[in-house]
Amino acid sequence: MNETLKTLLEHKTIRNYKSDPIEEDILNKILEAGFRASTTGNMQVYSVIVTRDEEKRKELCKLHFGQKMVEQAPVLLTFCADFNRFNKWCRQREAAPGYDNFLSFFTAAIDALLVAQNACVAAESFGLGICYLGTTTYQADKLIDFFNLPEGVVPITTVVVGYPNENPEQADRLPAEGVVHYEKYRDFSEEDIDRIYQEKENLPQTAQLIKENELDNLAQIFAYKRYTKKDNLHFSKVFLDALTNQGFMNNEG
Amino acid sequence: MNETLKTLLEHKTIRNYKSDPIEEDILNKILEAGFRASTTGNMQVYSVIVTRDEEKRKELCKLHFGQKMVEQAPVLLTFCADFNRFNKWCRQREAAPGYDNFLSFFTAAIDALLVAQNACVAAESFGLGICYLGTTTYQADKLIDFFNLPEGVVPITTVVVGYPNENPEQADRLPAEGVVHYEKYRDFSEEDIDRIYQEKENLPQTAQLIKENELDNLAQIFAYKRYTKKDNLHFSKVFLDALTNQGFMNNEG
Repeated sequence: MNETLKTLLEHKTIRNYKSDPIEEDILNKILEAGFRASTTGNMQVYSVIVTRDEEKRKELCKLHFGQKMVEQAPVLLTFCADFNRFNKWCRQREAAPGYDNFLSFFTAAIDALLVAQNACVAAESFGLGICYLGTTTYQADKLIDFFNLPEGVVPITTVVVGYPNENPEQADRLPAEGVVHYEKYRDFSEEDIDRIYQEKENLPQTAQLIKENELDNLAQIFAYKRYTKKDNLHFSKVFLDALTNQGFMNNEG
Repeated sequence: MNETLKTLLEHKTIRNYKSDPIEEDILNKILEAGFRASTTGNMQVYSVIVTRDEEKRKELCKLHFGQKMVEQAPVLLTFCADFNRFNKWCRQREAAPGYDNFLSFFTAAIDALLVAQNACVAAESFGLGICYLGTTTYQADKLIDFFNLPEGVVPITTVVVGYPNENPEQADRLPAEGVVHYEKYRDFSEEDIDRIYQEKENLPQTAQLIKENELDNLAQIFAYKRYTKKDNLHFSKVFLDALTNQGFMNNEG
C-alpha cells in the first residue's frame, strides 16, 4: 500500500489535543496543499481564516457550542465560500460580476470543502490530528460577525488542528453496499437496511448509548437527540438567512 | 517532504485519458479511502455512483455538455448528498426523520465532497488522473432522472478518473495572501487586488485568451463568457428546484 493511501485509510478524528503549537513551515505546507485542490474554473472562490490567538480560540470555543478541543488545539482553520475577492477584481476590471446567486454560493462552497479536505490530509501526513466542526453552519451568522466577513463570504466548515493527545479506535463505517451504487441507483429494501446497519447496531458502544439515552434504538438517538427536526429547521433558517445577508440569494436577476 | 504531501502538491487536472480500465482492487481502494473521510455524526449521508458502462458514459458525456473526457475515461464517480438510506433506516426503527430541510441537504453535501476529495487523492496516489465536473449541479435535474435518484438524494459533483494521456503544466494559483487571513478577515484594497492578480494576468495564456475572446481583460472573460450572470441565474433555479423536488426545502416544519 502506498503511503498516501495509508494516510487516508488510517484517518481518525481527534478530539483531545496537546497544546504544542504547529510549526510555521508545517502550517504553511498544510495551507499550500489545500490550495492545490481542484477549483471551479481556477477561480479559487474560497478563503481560509487561521486562528491561533488564545483569546480568539476561547471566544470561538463558545461559538462552537463549548467543544473543549476548540480552545485546546493550537490552530483553527475556518474555510469560507468567498466571492468577495473575485467580485472586487471583476469590478476593478470593468467586468460586472454575476455571482450573487445560489449557484455561485454552492460553487464556492464546493471549492472551500475540497481545500479543507486536502488540508486535513496534509495535516495528518505530519502526524497532526484534525476534527471537523459541524457547528460552523449552525452559527454562520455569529461567525460572520466574529470574523467581520464582508458580502460574498460565508463560513462553510471549521477544522481543529493540533498534535493528538489521545489515540482512539478508528470509527466504524457502513459496509460499501450502503454507499456505493453501480451504473444505476439501487434503492434499499427493508432487508437491505437491516443488513447494512446490523454491524453498527450491534457495536457495544451502541448498546451503551441506547441505555444512556433511554431510547429504543440508535436511529432514535439520531432523530430525537443528536440531529433533531427542531434544530435542523432552526439552523436551516440561520444558514439561509446568512446566505441572503451575504448577498447570495438574488436568484431572480 | 513526505509522500502524501507530494501527492497533494503535485495535483494536476487531467482532461485527456487512456482507455485502459482501472483495476478492480484499485477502484475499491479509492472508494474505501473516500469512505474514511470525516462525516457528520458518522451518519455517512452520501452515496457514490460508479459508471463504467460505455453506453452510459456516452450518455453522461452528453449530459455533461459534451466534454470528451467523460466518455473517454474508464470511470466516472458521481457523488451525491444522500439522506435516503438514513431516512429509510429511521422509519424502519420508529424514529421520525427530520432531514427534509436545507441544513440537512448542506450537511449531506459536505459529507459527499469530503469523500470525493479523498477519492481523488487516493486515485492520484495510484498514478491515475482526475477531473471534477462542475456541470453536475447545472444538470442536477437530468442526472436525477438518469440515475433514477429517489427523494433525499441530490448529485453534488462528478469526478472523471483514468490513466492520464497527457502531462500538462500545473495550473497557476493566486499568492497565499489572496486566500489566507490571520485572526480576522482582512478585506482587500484596490492595490491588494492588483498585486494578487498580477501574476495571473501576466501569464502568456492570459494574453492568448483575451485575444481569442476579443475582450479587454481576464476578468471580463470570466464574467461575460465563462460564468455569466444569465447562466448562473438559470442554474441557480435548476439546482434549487432539484433540492425542492428531492425533498430538501421543507424549511418551515
